Amino acid sequence: MAVKEKYEFSDKIAGLKPSAVREILKSTSDPEVISLAAGNPAPDAFPVESISKIAGDIFREDPISALQYGITEGYAPLRDELKTYLKNKYSMGADSDELIVTSGATQIMELLTKVLCNEGDCVVCEDPSFIGSLNCFRSYGVKLCGVHMESDGLDVEELEKMLSSNCRKVKFIYTIPNFQNPTGYTMSLEKRKQLYELASKYDIIILEDNPYGDLRVSGEDLPTIKSFDTEGRVVYAGTFSKLIAPGIRVGYVLGPAALVSKMTVGKQTEDVHTAMFNQMLVYRWMKENDINEHIRRMKSIYREKLNVMCDALDEYCPKLEYVKPEGGMFVWCRLPDGINMIDFCKTAAAHKVAVVPGTAFLPDETASTQYIRLNFSTPTNEDMVKGIKILGELLS
Amino acid sequence: MAVKEKYEFSDKIAGLKPSAVREILKSTSDPEVISLAAGNPAPDAFPVESISKIAGDIFREDPISALQYGITEGYAPLRDELKTYLKNKYSMGADSDELIVTSGATQIMELLTKVLCNEGDCVVCEDPSFIGSLNCFRSYGVKLCGVHMESDGLDVEELEKMLSSNCRKVKFIYTIPNFQNPTGYTMSLEKRKQLYELASKYDIIILEDNPYGDLRVSGEDLPTIKSFDTEGRVVYAGTFSKLIAPGIRVGYVLGPAALVSKMTVGKQTEDVHTAMFNQMLVYRWMKENDINEHIRRMKSIYREKLNVMCDALDEYCPKLEYVKPEGGMFVWCRLPDGINMIDFCKTAAAHKVAVVPGTAFLPDETASTQYIRLNFSTPTNEDMVKGIKILGELLS
Repeated sequence: MAVKEKYEFSDKIAGLKPSAVREILKSTSDPEVISLAAGNPAPDAFPVESISKIAGDIFREDPISALQYGITEGYAPLRDELKTYLKNKYSMGADSDELIVTSGATQIMELLTKVLCNEGDCVVCEDPSFIGSLNCFRSYGVKLCGVHMESDGLDVEELEKMLSSNCRKVKFIYTIPNFQNPTGYTMSLEKRKQLYELASKYDIIILEDNPYGDLRVSGEDLPTIKSFDTEGRVVYAGTFSKLIAPGIRVGYVLGPAALVSKMTVGKQTEDVHTAMFNQMLVYRWMKENDINEHIRRMKSIYREKLNVMCDALDEYCPKLEYVKPEGGMFVWCRLPDGINMIDFCKTAAAHKVAVVPGTAFLPDETASTQYIRLNFSTPTNEDMVKGIKILGELLS
Repeated sequence: MAVKEKYEFSDKIAGLKPSAVREILKSTSDPEVISLAAGNPAPDAFPVESISKIAGDIFREDPISALQYGITEGYAPLRDELKTYLKNKYSMGADSDELIVTSGATQIMELLTKVLCNEGDCVVCEDPSFIGSLNCFRSYGVKLCGVHMESDGLDVEELEKMLSSNCRKVKFIYTIPNFQNPTGYTMSLEKRKQLYELASKYDIIILEDNPYGDLRVSGEDLPTIKSFDTEGRVVYAGTFSKLIAPGIRVGYVLGPAALVSKMTVGKQTEDVHTAMFNQMLVYRWMKENDINEHIRRMKSIYREKLNVMCDALDEYCPKLEYVKPEGGMFVWCRLPDGINMIDFCKTAAAHKVAVVPGTAFLPDETASTQYIRLNFSTPTNEDMVKGIKILGELLS
């Protein structure tokens, strides 16, 4: 028999495309390309010195724990430390909640979908939203119902209309309330409360994803939606990808124990447990460092980079409309009418500047948009200004 | 609204139980319990010193690569190194094959099921087989079709009968040819060839899982099934869990590029990529160490432990029947007729010896068996003898 050329894929996966952003990133390995397309945290903010010290300590003091199998729920000292941290910082975590460690936060979106959704069920998400999460939902044959994003969070009226007409098939509502990816928008306190009330009224679970919460560079912190949760309906996704570093792949989920224990069964079949060294590293880092001091340092790096980007946009790209975010890693820019967004991205790439076409973030893959996403955390300040200058020249 | 008490789970997950083995292990955290129930590699075999040195080197020489996001396919130098290693060691890997790094080997079983199987499809597996993999398959609503294990590998005639009657719904055949978990049995060369021929005849994919291949303590190495693969139908699952250590969670899959690239899309939605530090650690460890010398050292540890277990079984438990394996980590023991296997396991636990009831490994969860699984890699030699003595007393 000759070499097989065709494989018959499952229905849920057959149509799933690789993340457009990650595909773009692969093409930007050309060192001449200025990438405003990434979603990487600023490497200057990584606490390299303390991590390096702790790595040495772990392999000297407790190597077997770092190398042997662990339980699926995660390293017990880290779980305890996190529960206390979240309680103190956000007033989150009821007696009926549980917390497990995950291999990054993406695994949380994946596991919640796996345990709750049958093919054909609906997940409500912000429109636009983070492509990585949208692809998690899609990978289980779930239908995405997008609710339009406004600069103070999703359109609550549209959400209610959707839930009242359709709520039996909606399994959960996915939201990134702080400095959302891709828009950078933050949900107002009022909308957080309204969202929780609607979820309660229609008896729906909320998946609150908060990867960027520590990256606020102006304005006041707002309470998490999980902190309102008296009914066991909010699943909170946290991560160390921005606070420490993404390459270690450590996240955590805090949610109703019954749900989290099903997610644990799911995780057992995915990767058994998150790597032990990585969990121990995070635990010791939390214990040995002044986290608030680290966050202050991180914020000053991000504040400067955000200002550099917005100043450059104002100077060189006056035709791009955007709402300056109060934190996070992204600026969501609207191209003038009459410019074809996809063509613009291609032209920019040809001029060695990579940006992400806004279509990548739309729940409806056939829809169109005038927006592009720019990232300010990864490029150097110099490259950022240079890249934005080039975009400005293309626009005029 | 009151606290929710019931959550509506997806059909595929609602019935999935946590791994019985891992549940037993949690209960053995009592330090007085002698556990013959684990599946942990011998910690004496972990190359602690070289890993510790390399960890220091990585954080000193290339910390940002270890901490920043990476691509889903894996760390390029590790992928190249592995392709060469597998080519030289096993003559595996055609031009039409691809290799990606995974977060342990379990993720490979999970991803292949995700990309190939719709709910209701069948996966053929050995009966009994590794519960972790069976639960991966079950977590996608797949029907398991077990083929009886013989001491030289699965019953090929039974397999052909099954495929000829049922093959349109069979998506792949799952096998652990070397020192299988739980039986310790190894598939003969003749059966490996027959299995490949049958898969070819019925145009079915083989998932070859080889976690224990390096742990052969007697007899001659046999070629992998993947090494026969001229048609792009074998997916090979490899891992560093036994060669280096399981806590680092690094595995790899070598298979037809079209299949592996779909698995990459699936992996992107699960954990984005395997932790970078962990991949770099494995890469440098492979480059800087004499792997064959390490394997020789590992084998001598496992050889001794296997002999201790079998000698103790012969001396204290003459009523337990078993086939002495040529490697791996497990001995599969048959209780005399008339003894209730589950009751025996419970009595042993009450006497502070943990063993795994054979039912945990049956594809048909309603079936019964007289077998129990004993592990010789994790306990100390002293504990092993003590535990087996207690089992012997309970048997007589």
